[in-house]
Amino acid sequence: MKQIDSPKNELVKKWKKLHTKKGRDQSGQFLIEGYHLVEEALKSTITIETILVTESVTLPTAWHVDERDVILVSDRVMADLTETKTPQGIAAICHIPDEPSFQELEGMFLCIDHVQDPGNVGTMIRTCDAAGMSAVIVSEGSVDIYNSKVVRASQGSIFHLPVIKGDLHGWVDQFKEAGIPVFGTALEGGSTYTAIEPQARFALLVGNEGEGVEPELLDKADQNLYIPLYGKAESLNVAVATGILLYYLRD
Amino acid sequence: MKQIDSPKNELVKKWKKLHTKKGRDQSGQFLIEGYHLVEEALKSTITIETILVTESVTLPTAWHVDERDVILVSDRVMADLTETKTPQGIAAICHIPDEPSFQELEGMFLCIDHVQDPGNVGTMIRTCDAAGMSAVIVSEGSVDIYNSKVVRASQGSIFHLPVIKGDLHGWVDQFKEAGIPVFGTALEGGSTYTAIEPQARFALLVGNEGEGVEPELLDKADQNLYIPLYGKAESLNVAVATGILLYYLRD
Repeated sequence: MKQIDSPKNELVKKWKKLHTKKGRDQSGQFLIEGYHLVEEALKSTITIETILVTESVTLPTAWHVDERDVILVSDRVMADLTETKTPQGIAAICHIPDEPSFQELEGMFLCIDHVQDPGNVGTMIRTCDAAGMSAVIVSEGSVDIYNSKVVRASQGSIFHLPVIKGDLHGWVDQFKEAGIPVFGTALEGGSTYTAIEPQARFALLVGNEGEGVEPELLDKADQNLYIPLYGKAESLNVAVATGILLYYLRD
Repeated sequence: MKQIDSPKNELVKKWKKLHTKKGRDQSGQFLIEGYHLVEEALKSTITIETILVTESVTLPTAWHVDERDVILVSDRVMADLTETKTPQGIAAICHIPDEPSFQELEGMFLCIDHVQDPGNVGTMIRTCDAAGMSAVIVSEGSVDIYNSKVVRASQGSIFHLPVIKGDLHGWVDQFKEAGIPVFGTALEGGSTYTAIEPQARFALLVGNEGEGVEPELLDKADQNLYIPLYGKAESLNVAVATGILLYYLRD
């Protein structure tokens, strides 16, 4: 097994750049950490470049990992590469997958407009996986989907369904051309969500907690929906609202 | 206006203890920070002992705050007392409110069993407020409800409805005696939640993400519910699951 002890090693320096969006975009790679995520990546169609382990870690034989794909690193190197408080001594370098085009997709979609909180975006990807969505489209002004906090909060769901960075205006136009109903969400205006019948095909637009979905996108939607607020809360958390709407809307 | 400059001031030392559960339990007080939370506390029935501001802050006149209840503190004191990265220069010391007894309550309840993540518990309190719940009961093994992260994630909803620390076994027994249906949640077993009719009175039990609701509590429930998972996700985030169930179950 190859071994890297020094944090100054050229490969380590290269991998550390994956902590930033720029580094990920330039290399086309991203970094994951922890047993669960590495296992989910191995089970998926994603390409794993290298698995990194510390001395204390034994890879489960059930994973059928080729030893040539594993590098043993020192605790210091692992600490430099990982961001969790209690690292599990395992990480992996993955290739950012190719994104499917609109023509390859069909069914139910979530479009995320300008949501910056990585925990919310990761939780929304997990919810889309649970609710059986076909794909998630994430707007340019949102947090990067390969940010390590997004990947962690998705609990591996980022490996289970296509998560696509895209221009929501273009996607909404394509949904409408294909006859897929587009539902916007807004605190006011439109219909309460239960006025809509569940559907086998739809695209739901959800937006930034403070500002909501961009008005130009709401104008394009076939219908805008809101969730009634019965108490004194001014709004719902965007991931909670997404869960309520997706589980109601799906057929 | 009274003024405190030194972090070594006895009052500051006392207030700093409110960062721990022990300190809050001993004094019967808790600390909140930021404009929004202080405003929500002022609008509520909660007793505010003192509002703390830094020099840069002007309290909105619409708040009608008596200057004798305000203390001007130095930036260093404020930094010592607050936990957010970008403090707004305003905080307040509040009294932990008396908890209503079972007899004073009626309607719809959420019971939170052993949920430790403060963001999840705060978001669940916010969701209960939005969904018009009558009260939230939080089990002993959960995160303390006056933990600052819980209060922040609740976005002020902690001031909008009773949030009660309690023994869930005792509460479930009381719900059953009063004829209020008790629904447990579990990943397996029981019915899919949509098999139940929406209700005007119910108590919903939700649990720890890893282990779920305590089996002895599930045994006491009238019926256990699950949310179908259509994709490859192993579970939903507990706050998202709570939102889906509460908005479905409420009448």
